[in-house]
Amino acid sequence: MDIGFIGLGAMGRPIAANLVKAGHKVRAWNRSKVELPGATIVATPREAFAGDAVLSILADDNAVRRVVVPALESAPKGLVHANLATISVAFAKELARLHADHAVGYIAATVFGRPDAAAEGKLTVVTAGEPDAVARVQPLLDAFGQKSWNVGNEPHLANVLKIAGNFLIASAMEAMAESAVLVESHGLSGGTFLEVLTGSLFAAPLYKNYSRLIVEEKYEPPAFRLALGFKDLRLCLEAAEQGRVPMPFAGVIRDQMLDALAHGDGERDWVTVARVSKRRAGRS
Amino acid sequence: MDIGFIGLGAMGRPIAANLVKAGHKVRAWNRSKVELPGATIVATPREAFAGDAVLSILADDNAVRRVVVPALESAPKGLVHANLATISVAFAKELARLHADHAVGYIAATVFGRPDAAAEGKLTVVTAGEPDAVARVQPLLDAFGQKSWNVGNEPHLANVLKIAGNFLIASAMEAMAESAVLVESHGLSGGTFLEVLTGSLFAAPLYKNYSRLIVEEKYEPPAFRLALGFKDLRLCLEAAEQGRVPMPFAGVIRDQMLDALAHGDGERDWVTVARVSKRRAGRS
Amino acid sequence: MDIGFIGLGAMGRPIAANLVKAGHKVRAWNRSKVELPGATIVATPREAFAGDAVLSILADDNAVRRVVVPALESAPKGLVHANLATISVAFAKELARLHADHAVGYIAATVFGRPDAAAEGKLTVVTAGEPDAVARVQPLLDAFGQKSWNVGNEPHLANVLKIAGNFLIASAMEAMAESAVLVESHGLSGGTFLEVLTGSLFAAPLYKNYSRLIVEEKYEPPAFRLALGFKDLRLCLEAAEQGRVPMPFAGVIRDQMLDALAHGDGERDWVTVARVSKRRAGRS
Amino acid sequence: MDIGFIGLGAMGRPIAANLVKAGHKVRAWNRSKVELPGATIVATPREAFAGDAVLSILADDNAVRRVVVPALESAPKGLVHANLATISVAFAKELARLHADHAVGYIAATVFGRPDAAAEGKLTVVTAGEPDAVARVQPLLDAFGQKSWNVGNEPHLANVLKIAGNFLIASAMEAMAESAVLVESHGLSGGTFLEVLTGSLFAAPLYKNYSRLIVEEKYEPPAFRLALGFKDLRLCLEAAEQGRVPMPFAGVIRDQMLDALAHGDGERDWVTVARVSKRRAGRS
Repeated sequence: MDIGFIGLGAMGRPIAANLVKAGHKVRAWNRSKVELPGATIVATPREAFAGDAVLSILADDNAVRRVVVPALESAPKGLVHANLATISVAFAKELARLHADHAVGYIAATVFGRPDAAAEGKLTVVTAGEPDAVARVQPLLDAFGQKSWNVGNEPHLANVLKIAGNFLIASAMEAMAESAVLVESHGLSGGTFLEVLTGSLFAAPLYKNYSRLIVEEKYEPPAFRLALGFKDLRLCLEAAEQGRVPMPFAGVIRDQMLDALAHGDGERDWVTVARVSKRRAGRS
Repeated sequence: MDIGFIGLGAMGRPIAANLVKAGHKVRAWNRSKVELPGATIVATPREAFAGDAVLSILADDNAVRRVVVPALESAPKGLVHANLATISVAFAKELARLHADHAVGYIAATVFGRPDAAAEGKLTVVTAGEPDAVARVQPLLDAFGQKSWNVGNEPHLANVLKIAGNFLIASAMEAMAESAVLVESHGLSGGTFLEVLTGSLFAAPLYKNYSRLIVEEKYEPPAFRLALGFKDLRLCLEAAEQGRVPMPFAGVIRDQMLDALAHGDGERDWVTVARVSKRRAGRS
Repeated sequence: MDIGFIGLGAMGRPIAANLVKAGHKVRAWNRSKVELPGATIVATPREAFAGDAVLSILADDNAVRRVVVPALESAPKGLVHANLATISVAFAKELARLHADHAVGYIAATVFGRPDAAAEGKLTVVTAGEPDAVARVQPLLDAFGQKSWNVGNEPHLANVLKIAGNFLIASAMEAMAESAVLVESHGLSGGTFLEVLTGSLFAAPLYKNYSRLIVEEKYEPPAFRLALGFKDLRLCLEAAEQGRVPMPFAGVIRDQMLDALAHGDGERDWVTVARVSKRRAGRS
Repeated sequence: MDIGFIGLGAMGRPIAANLVKAGHKVRAWNRSKVELPGATIVATPREAFAGDAVLSILADDNAVRRVVVPALESAPKGLVHANLATISVAFAKELARLHADHAVGYIAATVFGRPDAAAEGKLTVVTAGEPDAVARVQPLLDAFGQKSWNVGNEPHLANVLKIAGNFLIASAMEAMAESAVLVESHGLSGGTFLEVLTGSLFAAPLYKNYSRLIVEEKYEPPAFRLALGFKDLRLCLEAAEQGRVPMPFAGVIRDQMLDALAHGDGERDWVTVARVSKRRAGRS
């Protein structure tokens, strides 16, 4: 297919590379100048908004507003845009309306997984949007996703899922961090504790990966920066506010992350939030 | 082997049945009168404290203090006692001293899993204690455990692990409960949300089982009563206090459980704590 | 003095009435049509932005942005604007720049107290801004304030103080609510408890007033709506985020207020948040 | 009157001194050897349990159990014991039964105030117990209390009130600590902030005293040690557990205190908990 691609950051780059590898003709745009072997780098987002479909993966609501919204003006009718970014629920709804206004197809295709999983084509992809539009871009998603889930016709549902999913991940990190410090205060190695649990009841990829990072205190290089993780947590709190849902765990994570940010960990991996539990217990 | 077994409750009964099935000669004692095919029911805990080894699985510190401690007086030197109960760290240390005083071998062999897993011989078993004593009872543990882990020579370490492990489970339940309500407040089914997550990043037995119970609101019959779950959470908070470890997630879970207890859910399964998130959001 | 006044809501109305009573010539504007004996109602905010000074008390950032910012365009140089609204720290800083751009004097004059205190001229007024500008409007502030405090030359400092002050009030309400339920669960009347405490260590106006409302469950009519109180709490959380300050009490209050909002209490007085503690304990 | 007095610690000593000054004949006992001018030091608690009445002020449940309970055996029928200690609700009920078993009158007379207030005879005293027994010791209480409140016939009610009152104090400290750090992160002095608030809405003795200690970081010498404050918080959490009352503020304070204890502040004044908010925000 002839596709546009917007956003060649830590996640976007390996995703686009997989699209090239799969034989697609990729016109890519990035805010700062970069190269991508096999792809054509275009000068404006508008040039990416052409062909059969366009995929974008930008940092946040503001970036999408600045880059995508103006490009809709000149987008050909019938083009399908798959938005991979983690954005707010409110903006996701607004984006759906804006695309409809310009007769541009629109789906959300949010992704779980870190850059190494993106490079290996092993992301988990969650789509939402009109079935025809989803079907159109599905082959593209399969180029970097291990498994795809569709959760409905309204694009924002995939954003809701992504926001809640990141909360679930952050909760798992916090729970592991607190309990690892607890066992260490009683003479049991946190590594042993997490090895037993992630080798049995908690034998899930996420627990295995993060428990290793926590035990080894591997905070750098960041696969997902704490500052970005905090942004996602804020999206969760905003969504909870709109839905009027008390989420005490989210409130706790907020403070732990603020503690980490106040201690200079914003550019480290978000697993660095585990350091807060150690510091508070006088064990860092 | 010729063994004693103390405590034929929801967990003890299927465990003892597996020991009988494995060909061991079992002398079993229970507070209230019960039968167990293939086993001899004895009239006092002291009669169970004889033979090659004795296993006990009682409800809490008080029950162990009432039943086990007096039986140590007349226990034959060299007997090995494997304590499967979830008890406090402080009492675990005291018990180790008491057994040593009476020259009775002592290990902690804590178990993860619900009654159905116990019946199928698929519990996760975590031992701690003198290697010789552990080795002696290992064949017994293998009769009901799918996998065994040893975490050190001091028995209380297995209790620390069990307490922290139950906290990790309770945290997972709470995180699922909060996020399921969040997504529902935005029009996404909590079932869909949890199906996607437990089918990908969170593909662990624990998440799969509990997410199903949460989504189906299957609060009865209880495999593990909320009142008991609260007891275990209290053990966690006590251990955190002794170790001087702030555990904000544990504090949140405490209040959610108290909320559930105040609403009459103490005899329901501890997954009923998920109902609190719904009620607080006006969605129960 | 010849003054403009913007915003004749629950607080603005009695404040403006006191200015009229003090002999000032008041040109008042309000979004919806109202009358105010002794004052001239003007048709546009611009007409209010004239004379010696203008006071405004609007609901939130958005209202100030819509009403005040356009009026600055035609405001006479040297006019002093005293902004009484509870607005965000970020917007407070922006407003200071916008006023400077138009050579309009600007101070923040935030107020503590409920409508009855406003009517009696007993508000607590906290100012921040250039000393000359503050001095110019001080006689006006004295018409409705019992006591005035100046906290610095940068206007936003009075907004910071107001936001933190409201957090302190909300914390006092929550602490009273939790402890009143606690004592009742042990047979002591919450009223007796709060009477003793507010008659001794906590003999402050705020504790006396709110404890009475809590004990009498006097949730209506609202002197300060819960929905507005939640807005102020959000300003606190935003300021904490910018300052990277963990505030666990603020997180708790957020969830209690969301719980109250989810149960339909948004239009009741914000003391209704106390009802949440009762409901959670099964005592509502 | 001819009275016994048990416990000459930081609070007990100035209280007993006031009783001597008021002309009472005081037989005093203390665990470690001390002197008290004007009083007779006796060798055993039993010798203090004689005469017209006995007052005791001991550290916690355990101390009361060790010292008071055995002394009841030989206490003369009709003696009245006023217990000033902060003890658990459960133990308070048990103590009432034990006194009744020995026909010894029993009231709880809990006190608010720090050692300097005790020395000046300005404590707040809260009594509960049989009216006759209360009336008998009231003149004694008036020797060190500024104001007395009676809250019922069942002694434990005064303990419930004391526990809840200390929670209210700890909540005020935490709220002041969080908000002081918040305003400082935005350039407003915490001292200015607290001066304005405690000079207006929060013009209560408690807020004035503690805000000064927080602003001046006056953590030593301790008027009330953090380790003891944590004990009282634990009594609050236990009472909440028995009453099935979620108390999220109490949970937060628990973690803040554990953080302080983990950082070596147990022997400092409990206001040192305010340091935790600073440290977490990277401002200590």
